[in-house]
Amino acid sequence: MKFTRFESEGVICQGVVEKENIREITGDLFTKWEYTGRTFIREDVKLLAPIQPNQIIGIGANYVKDVSELPEKLPDIPVFFFKPISSVIGPGEDIIIPEGIEEVKFESELAVVIGKEAKKLSASNVREYIFGYTIGNDVTAPQFIHPDGHWTVGKSFDTFTPLGPYIETELDLANIRVKATLDGIEKQNSGMDLIIISVEKMIAYLSNVMTLKPGDVILTGSPVGAELVGAGSIINCHIDEIGSLKNTFSKVKVSVN
Amino acid sequence: MKFTRFESEGVICQGVVEKENIREITGDLFTKWEYTGRTFIREDVKLLAPIQPNQIIGIGANYVKDVSELPEKLPDIPVFFFKPISSVIGPGEDIIIPEGIEEVKFESELAVVIGKEAKKLSASNVREYIFGYTIGNDVTAPQFIHPDGHWTVGKSFDTFTPLGPYIETELDLANIRVKATLDGIEKQNSGMDLIIISVEKMIAYLSNVMTLKPGDVILTGSPVGAELVGAGSIINCHIDEIGSLKNTFSKVKVSVN
Repeated sequence: MKFTRFESEGVICQGVVEKENIREITGDLFTKWEYTGRTFIREDVKLLAPIQPNQIIGIGANYVKDVSELPEKLPDIPVFFFKPISSVIGPGEDIIIPEGIEEVKFESELAVVIGKEAKKLSASNVREYIFGYTIGNDVTAPQFIHPDGHWTVGKSFDTFTPLGPYIETELDLANIRVKATLDGIEKQNSGMDLIIISVEKMIAYLSNVMTLKPGDVILTGSPVGAELVGAGSIINCHIDEIGSLKNTFSKVKVSVN
Repeated sequence: MKFTRFESEGVICQGVVEKENIREITGDLFTKWEYTGRTFIREDVKLLAPIQPNQIIGIGANYVKDVSELPEKLPDIPVFFFKPISSVIGPGEDIIIPEGIEEVKFESELAVVIGKEAKKLSASNVREYIFGYTIGNDVTAPQFIHPDGHWTVGKSFDTFTPLGPYIETELDLANIRVKATLDGIEKQNSGMDLIIISVEKMIAYLSNVMTLKPGDVILTGSPVGAELVGAGSIINCHIDEIGSLKNTFSKVKVSVN
């Protein structure tokens, strides 16, 4: 089942995508929702980020180029980081390159949406706490990474976390491929055989540190191939079973008032 | 004016502190609230963290020991970090030392509560976006700091962000002292003359990266003197004009079921 948020005539709605239609729903995705009876044509509405996250947590450097490069031993402490919820945009919105720099980096990622409060999970029972999956683009301005290794500023600019287009609740993780196409040219394309810390293991680890809540979004890392791009380029992050998250890079709008 | 959240007979309430009383209020602190007419005796209720933050942003290493150590030039990129909102506890609650380690570090801090959406501020107009001030204890387990410098895991454990006791809306920043007393012995006591990046400058910088929202809490850094402590110790973070935020360190509770 694919959930969406969308705007129609200035009103923000939720719905379930069925082929070319969206059936509107009302309620809370994680607890109780129902159909309203209204149906929209998908092409006629503006899709929004499918969720307003409670928090966004990412993991760094989590894919290898080839299975032969997979480490024998997982790191003791994974590189986790937070992104601000103010950085979220939806499909079709512009990624704004901050003033003073010319390029930023895209990173196509599988994004997990937590559905139930989760504390001290083991990897084997993580799946029942996952509500669904969407696509995230973990945009970064490496020019704002602190020399001592702190990533916060470089990852926190407004528009730096496109999410969407849908939350897919049924996904066979073993068979997906996380892809990115820049101006029509494929840049990223990896399966879960190339992930270092698996989705289940990273969420289990996190849940042993902090209580995860419904609406927490976890960006599970980006395949090899991300690169710096400038204004005008179009990045399409896609996972076939979820959809296509397309955004254009643009320069900061300078106000004239 | 001092705002509080508190629990009385199992119900969570908001109020304004007036001497030994709390006058209950209803509504949204940042937009519109009113008195309900009910009054509670402060000693009779359980104080909670005075706010459930929208996000928590901290700044690293932001005080010097002596004014002679203040750098001539501020850093180009401040060390900002996020803490999860799940890490918040209130006055009197236990700080739980994670399994496998024996000590964690306290850090008494002035915490700023943002009251209005803030974007691209200059330092001179930051004050009008601040709703008020509380005290934060930025607890850290340095054993979980990543060797490459990533702080996220070490700062994210449940109970690692005590906040309280009140949000004070009127505060003369120039004259406060940020203090911590461990088991009755003073460990931290600094004024704003020893801060490296001022409250106004750090919030202006942040607002030029990300849109700050009402309910965002900014931990403004900790004076020199923080140290590692083990279970049983009581940490009292205090700023006279706001109040006293007291918590006991305790070992993780192991469930027996």
